[in-house]
Amino acid sequence: MSDVAEAGTGRRARGGGGAARRAERSALSIETARFIERRIPNFEVLNEEALEIIEHNAETVLEEIGVKFVENPAALERWKAAGADVKGDHVRIPRGLARQLCSTAPSRFTQHARNPARNVEIGGRNLVLAPVYGPPFVRDLEGGRRYATLADFRNLVKLGYMSKWLHHSGGTVCEPTDVPVNKRHLDMLLAHMTLSDKPFMGSVTAPERAQDSVDMASLLFGADFVQQNTVMTSLININSPLVFDGIMMGALEVYASNNQATIISPFIVGGAMAPVTVAGTLTQVLAEILAGVAYSQLVRPGAPVIAGAFVTSIDMNSGAPTFGTPEASHITYGAGQLVRRLGLPYRSAGAFCGSKLPDAQAAYESANSLNMGLLAGVNFMLHACGWLEGGLVSSYEKFVMDADQLGILHHFAAGVDLSENGQGLDAIREVGPGGHYLGCAHTQANFKTAFWRTELLDYKPFETWEEEGGRDTVTLAAERVKRLLNAYQPPALDEGIRESLEAFVARRKESMPDAFV
Amino acid sequence: MSDVAEAGTGRRARGGGGAARRAERSALSIETARFIERRIPNFEVLNEEALEIIEHNAETVLEEIGVKFVENPAALERWKAAGADVKGDHVRIPRGLARQLCSTAPSRFTQHARNPARNVEIGGRNLVLAPVYGPPFVRDLEGGRRYATLADFRNLVKLGYMSKWLHHSGGTVCEPTDVPVNKRHLDMLLAHMTLSDKPFMGSVTAPERAQDSVDMASLLFGADFVQQNTVMTSLININSPLVFDGIMMGALEVYASNNQATIISPFIVGGAMAPVTVAGTLTQVLAEILAGVAYSQLVRPGAPVIAGAFVTSIDMNSGAPTFGTPEASHITYGAGQLVRRLGLPYRSAGAFCGSKLPDAQAAYESANSLNMGLLAGVNFMLHACGWLEGGLVSSYEKFVMDADQLGILHHFAAGVDLSENGQGLDAIREVGPGGHYLGCAHTQANFKTAFWRTELLDYKPFETWEEEGGRDTVTLAAERVKRLLNAYQPPALDEGIRESLEAFVARRKESMPDAFV
Repeated sequence: MSDVAEAGTGRRARGGGGAARRAERSALSIETARFIERRIPNFEVLNEEALEIIEHNAETVLEEIGVKFVENPAALERWKAAGADVKGDHVRIPRGLARQLCSTAPSRFTQHARNPARNVEIGGRNLVLAPVYGPPFVRDLEGGRRYATLADFRNLVKLGYMSKWLHHSGGTVCEPTDVPVNKRHLDMLLAHMTLSDKPFMGSVTAPERAQDSVDMASLLFGADFVQQNTVMTSLININSPLVFDGIMMGALEVYASNNQATIISPFIVGGAMAPVTVAGTLTQVLAEILAGVAYSQLVRPGAPVIAGAFVTSIDMNSGAPTFGTPEASHITYGAGQLVRRLGLPYRSAGAFCGSKLPDAQAAYESANSLNMGLLAGVNFMLHACGWLEGGLVSSYEKFVMDADQLGILHHFAAGVDLSENGQGLDAIREVGPGGHYLGCAHTQANFKTAFWRTELLDYKPFETWEEEGGRDTVTLAAERVKRLLNAYQPPALDEGIRESLEAFVARRKESMPDAFV
Repeated sequence: MSDVAEAGTGRRARGGGGAARRAERSALSIETARFIERRIPNFEVLNEEALEIIEHNAETVLEEIGVKFVENPAALERWKAAGADVKGDHVRIPRGLARQLCSTAPSRFTQHARNPARNVEIGGRNLVLAPVYGPPFVRDLEGGRRYATLADFRNLVKLGYMSKWLHHSGGTVCEPTDVPVNKRHLDMLLAHMTLSDKPFMGSVTAPERAQDSVDMASLLFGADFVQQNTVMTSLININSPLVFDGIMMGALEVYASNNQATIISPFIVGGAMAPVTVAGTLTQVLAEILAGVAYSQLVRPGAPVIAGAFVTSIDMNSGAPTFGTPEASHITYGAGQLVRRLGLPYRSAGAFCGSKLPDAQAAYESANSLNMGLLAGVNFMLHACGWLEGGLVSSYEKFVMDADQLGILHHFAAGVDLSENGQGLDAIREVGPGGHYLGCAHTQANFKTAFWRTELLDYKPFETWEEEGGRDTVTLAAERVKRLLNAYQPPALDEGIRESLEAFVARRKESMPDAFV
């Protein structure tokens, strides 16, 4: 780590007034909305009695049925020392212990971006939006469906950077399948760090890749800064039901011990990895969150974590996961209530869909999920744009389509303005019965900010729309993708930092043979 | 009316056990879900203080600014007698009077269908879903966009009859533009009465057409039954801002005096017909509802009414109405709260969209509105399926696409099952860490009913989907439309009633010259 510390020439290391920072700021032409601070209540689908039943049952699961921490002797030692009943890799957690351990996790934390204006506060009544994560394929109108490459990855990071309503650059916006599996994370991190100045996620596919992520972040932010602040939020999935594998937990251990945030998240297709009923799934989700978050606090008390719930339902005919469904909504709302009672930030929802195309099916499903995410009190929404085909595909067009819809969440979350201007009584007086508001003073004073405005959808009269080619949403989106990528300019970055990052990536790549599995 | 009374050979007039009724029942092969009875809370966007401010301001509007009842001397007399300050057609209503008059309106009522299994209860925590209303155009994949005809009207009534999640046959599902304006209502009513056995709406375009609606309903249900029960719910729009025109109020008078229900509803494009701010629009909406509902109770205390709010926002560039927007959602949620405090059933929301095609834009916008309608506590949702292009077009494909999504509202509204079976703790015990739920006893016992299932959307693996032609949602919907219309069989209807209805329509058509405006 000494090379990292020496190369720690990041923004903060240079102090408050350097030329590099001024250059960086002057280059910022892309408007990004501040993360959402809700002024609306959460929607709650469970009453107090239901919550208590599920909480009781989750403790029963931990105590009687237990969880497994596999291929991870250190984890078993930690659990034993904490008072759990450990037999082999099977860990049974006495009633109340996991919840008590969770109490050292912060209820909210700041994730720093290299541009401080883009820092995000995760927790409380906030909502931070991040793009799609994980697909091995991409699709666009021109090229169809194909394996994703690093070029696609870089394009999607650019689109994320240019999306006003997206607060976070995300992580694996697609899998760059043209790069060896054991080296991808280096190129992905380099892209997030250099092509965007929004906050980003680290690698979780192996503990050493998590360490690479920490090391590269130390180059970007300065090593001291990283140890004292959270600059990455990374996705740790639980192997539902009730299994915590050594690789994911190994990555979690790296992040937690370096003060970096993790999302600890069951990944559940209901009926396959959890009971087919909503309350049963919620019970398992809560048990898994309790065990996972408790473990993060055993590694480092106070380590920032987000309690996650990725839950879909299943098509019982084909076994395919289904999205935007009422049962997934019940679970997302209910898990939000349970997580808030734990005092933790909550990750769930996204622009989920099962459709193969960015068509009406995709939009119905995504809108159902996005609305639910906002009202369920989600604090960190991964997959907020670009997700297609059950997460197998990152769609260029859907990325900008969903990203436009995210503006709706911002405006709705702002709540209703009850100021005198908001009440508008003078406007009603001025216009009177049978009048027209378009020209009145109140309308003129407010119309620019009164309504959310799409940058994509079409409201032209039919005849105009037809003359212009009768374009559907995907066609409009494809045009927008091209416009954005053509207009893209990278945010300024200190040349010394860029060189140290590139050198790190080159050195790490040279140190390993390529691996493709 | 004597011919109507004599011809009142409807179901009830025949008593409880006639052969006609048995025949009717045995012919029922179409499954229709019961109206939604919510087991979930409403979402509330306004706090108590905000509600009180808006209620106070609405009374100020009524008292100081007033409303107009135009071309309607009888209405002005009624208002004068009730204690309002009437000058010309301008009516100023003392603070509190309108709210007090509203108190005689029932908080819920039954709308009877000719098939009693399809009666709907409007009010309380219920939600009744009805199709699109009013478009002069239709669109389908094969024929494109064109003026609607009576053949289209009949097709849409058939689709409504065959839609499981639609409880109501609606009214003007499209304008049959090939029938003279002054005779359309007769053909539309005949279609609803004979092609479907779900409840329906009456004509409001002239008082005499409202009377024709009552007379035809009397033939179908029996005249006594109609006078004692509500068999139609009809749409009375207010000319926002604050004007009640003689034609619409004349129709309302006919319905109210015959004990038939009306939806009294501002029709507002925000920024044009109401203030550009949410709280200002809510103030005007409440004032209009108060005045309109109060007037219905002046006509006949106890007449069943629904308080409506059709509100969209506006694209300030083009002046076009916009749908699925956050401001429209604020208003829909807030108006629901205000209407509940009045103790009235609430009409709002729908599968609204501005898109010219049933594409992703249409689906985003519609899903935003449908979700909002469910959570806003709407009791009667007109336009719940088939609406396209800002209400200019009834779309065949979107009708079945939206109708499929309505199943989601039913399942979500059912809330979470906390029974022992719902809790599923034994399933978690059986499966344990690392197991799989697909084969477990709990899954087998519950999977058929556990999840909402689409009858339209595609969840097949990519390869299968591609082999089958890579169809998008609209293509799948077009195929479903054809399947449904081919399979359609009319519900049985007593031949005597059918003949009396047809004779009534023929006689009324002969009595008038054609009018096309």
